[in-house]
Amino acid sequence: MTPEYEQFMEKVEEVDNLGKIDSILTWDQEVMMPERGIEARSKQKAVMSRLKHRLISDEELGQLIKELEDQDLTGEQDAVLREIKREHEKEKKIPVELLEKISEKESECVEKWKNAREESDFSMVAPHLEELVELKRRYAEAIDPDEEPYRVLFRDYEPYIEFETMVLIMEKLEKRVPEILEKIRESDAEVDTEAFKGDFPEEKQRELNEELVEKLNFDWRRGRLDVSEHPFTLGNQFDCRITTRFNGENLAESILPTVHEFGHGMYQLGLDQDNYGNPLGSARDLSIHESQSRLWENHIARSRAFWEQFLPTLKEHFPSFNEVSAEECYESVNQVDPENMIRVNADEVSYHLHIALRFELERRLVNGEIEVEELPDLWNDKMEELLDIRPGSDAEGVLQDIHWYWGSIGYFPTYSLGSVLAAQIYREAEEEIADLDEKISNGEFEELQEWLRENIHIHGKKFKTAELVEKVTGQKPSAEPFLDYIEEKYGELYDL
Amino acid sequence: MTPEYEQFMEKVEEVDNLGKIDSILTWDQEVMMPERGIEARSKQKAVMSRLKHRLISDEELGQLIKELEDQDLTGEQDAVLREIKREHEKEKKIPVELLEKISEKESECVEKWKNAREESDFSMVAPHLEELVELKRRYAEAIDPDEEPYRVLFRDYEPYIEFETMVLIMEKLEKRVPEILEKIRESDAEVDTEAFKGDFPEEKQRELNEELVEKLNFDWRRGRLDVSEHPFTLGNQFDCRITTRFNGENLAESILPTVHEFGHGMYQLGLDQDNYGNPLGSARDLSIHESQSRLWENHIARSRAFWEQFLPTLKEHFPSFNEVSAEECYESVNQVDPENMIRVNADEVSYHLHIALRFELERRLVNGEIEVEELPDLWNDKMEELLDIRPGSDAEGVLQDIHWYWGSIGYFPTYSLGSVLAAQIYREAEEEIADLDEKISNGEFEELQEWLRENIHIHGKKFKTAELVEKVTGQKPSAEPFLDYIEEKYGELYDL
Repeated sequence: MTPEYEQFMEKVEEVDNLGKIDSILTWDQEVMMPERGIEARSKQKAVMSRLKHRLISDEELGQLIKELEDQDLTGEQDAVLREIKREHEKEKKIPVELLEKISEKESECVEKWKNAREESDFSMVAPHLEELVELKRRYAEAIDPDEEPYRVLFRDYEPYIEFETMVLIMEKLEKRVPEILEKIRESDAEVDTEAFKGDFPEEKQRELNEELVEKLNFDWRRGRLDVSEHPFTLGNQFDCRITTRFNGENLAESILPTVHEFGHGMYQLGLDQDNYGNPLGSARDLSIHESQSRLWENHIARSRAFWEQFLPTLKEHFPSFNEVSAEECYESVNQVDPENMIRVNADEVSYHLHIALRFELERRLVNGEIEVEELPDLWNDKMEELLDIRPGSDAEGVLQDIHWYWGSIGYFPTYSLGSVLAAQIYREAEEEIADLDEKISNGEFEELQEWLRENIHIHGKKFKTAELVEKVTGQKPSAEPFLDYIEEKYGELYDL
Repeated sequence: MTPEYEQFMEKVEEVDNLGKIDSILTWDQEVMMPERGIEARSKQKAVMSRLKHRLISDEELGQLIKELEDQDLTGEQDAVLREIKREHEKEKKIPVELLEKISEKESECVEKWKNAREESDFSMVAPHLEELVELKRRYAEAIDPDEEPYRVLFRDYEPYIEFETMVLIMEKLEKRVPEILEKIRESDAEVDTEAFKGDFPEEKQRELNEELVEKLNFDWRRGRLDVSEHPFTLGNQFDCRITTRFNGENLAESILPTVHEFGHGMYQLGLDQDNYGNPLGSARDLSIHESQSRLWENHIARSRAFWEQFLPTLKEHFPSFNEVSAEECYESVNQVDPENMIRVNADEVSYHLHIALRFELERRLVNGEIEVEELPDLWNDKMEELLDIRPGSDAEGVLQDIHWYWGSIGYFPTYSLGSVLAAQIYREAEEEIADLDEKISNGEFEELQEWLRENIHIHGKKFKTAELVEKVTGQKPSAEPFLDYIEEKYGELYDL
């Protein structure tokens, strides 16, 4: 390690740790903070973003990056340099005043959105969203004035997936998913939908979910499971915090989010411990993260094998499950309901049309092709076109997701990418791990976990996203494995 | 507000918010963090101290301070300048490498102390304490090479109480307390000691303590009550977190710490909300903070009026209290036991001899008059001299408190100062608030709380400590009110 690299790493670790501290503040805010704590927390968060910006755009850091580019670095050192250089060059183009304005506007807009959603009245938030979108355009312009603004924003979330690759995947989904849904609509198959309905006290659900993640080998010495309004995961390889939520009338609505977040958590906990505090010990971007959560949610928790394994535990906690079969559990978590309006409740198949809608609208919006005020109607029209349903209110339509209102534009496609990559990765796992399905039904998850860790988690950001996918699966990111998977699975379930 | 003052305040708020964020990390570490999270947290904390040091010792800040000294500021602006200038000038004298070494050594030494205490073997931690004491000497020397090292360290905790004032108070306590204890030892009075002994499940204790702080008007929208190994309070005027602990066999051992921490919490929550993020909205130093916790613990929760008010609530939660009288509760929480070896279990009277011992030893130690290896024997000898008891092991003696092992040398006297100031302030409150005792016994705490807020909390660091005390009580900090208070209270209780 040269002296320059050492100095460089010291700065890298400062930036990285600030990010980790910021995560703790976010987790605390969502899970622990008393209500009025927000009045102090928003100021703390503002100081954190200012400092992070200052440290990453620091001139001395820029100088070190330049010097290191002329040095003969190892492959891993090169990867760290690549990641930090990208961040540094981006951040130094963005005026700190613009970042502060965006951050303020985001907080304000989210508050307005909460009220607007409650009243189901988009006009209450529209002017704020308009200002926020304008600021995001200025943000994109600061980074690259010659590029399509939406591409710049997407690259913030997915620097190492080609925009064209993502578009190709979205186009394939938008073409093939409706065909499959059409067949399902026409199917006479009877698929159980009732297995998880009933009366489930919160405290008992909590116990069940704790036992669930324990069966999946969650390491309590390095993790927590809590409750929040929207489930999420934050943390690092030593301290990973997942959350879930409870619906007293539907047990699957805690189990599936728990397993989803558990998948995110496995990724965090699988990162290289020796590289805590730098990109080699940090997760690759959103699509890979989401591939891990969807792998556990869709390919494990929505499999027959999982319910064969887990049903006895369900029965111990809730004797009403003595009347339910593993097959009914399997059917209930895989029921396809194209009439559902709400993305977060969507089934694995319809889900991607919800994303396709958002992808189209947010791209046109930020590129200036449509106006904020047109969003509710365009949303409803597109919903009709894609899923043959029309939201009856703004709350069921354009106001359902928080993302745009807190400035996350260009984020939605990473959800579809996550499902697609999950299928691609899981197909490879099934090929490489003997009798994987049988192991799942025996509750033996270790081999899969080890495989995911060795192939994905341990690398952190060493490889670019597409490289990593190709290294693991032998193929570039592609929608085919996902489409094959849903055709086979739902073909059997719905007798297509 | 001049442009310079505005720039200055921007920097002040950055530093201040970093401190607040650091508090959240500490709270989280003690209350929420999974065990192995420490491996990441220690790095996050190290980055925080480095950044705090960098921001407070920043040259631009120094330049602004200079410019502001020539400007015509308001009284409040002057106070902010005074506080920040002191911090700035101190910090810029300390090499950041020294701070980092101290911080590392502190973490290491605390770990060694935990093991040593478990094995009751001082020699296991002695070499580490020796290195730490040496580093603290270098720290004191960096700040002021011409001053007695112990005074420099004391000033870190109490910049605005004269060292001589503190010494005078400690001397008075060390002279008068033994005389009172002697009389108590000779007394034939029968004082109940059993009221709080029994079998109290943790969950039920938690409910009781929640109701207790609610009766004291704790604002849940701005606060939390949790459990930790050692009770503590951290937070700010919007988000104040107190902790307590439970002893299944003694209910007073959660009630008294809860009320103590509640007192700290009232101070935090009473700070000026408009001045969040600067010294005017931050608590004065340790002795004033401790005066607030001791006021609630000693003058409220150890009063007859309090138990008259609270006993019915106790009975609701624990029917065994139907057999207990308010007088027995009062006696039990005021029992004087000079044979107790452990500071944190000490009664209000003996307590100060435990502090006198530590004050003497830590002063001689850091000033180089005694060696680390002599500490266990000197401790035991002094204990015999002051309290006529001799610890039978290191765990009962020199290893009982964490403070020295995490580098807090010069801190102990602030505990005695806190009790002394509590008595001085409470005597004034009793004079100014009509029928205060009766109000307590009716559960009417609002007037006292408002009085404390208006007279102490709301000012933050506007006044220097001694100034503030004089402003509230008309007198300089003095041991007399405390000595009068214990002579009267224990005179009556023990028929002296």
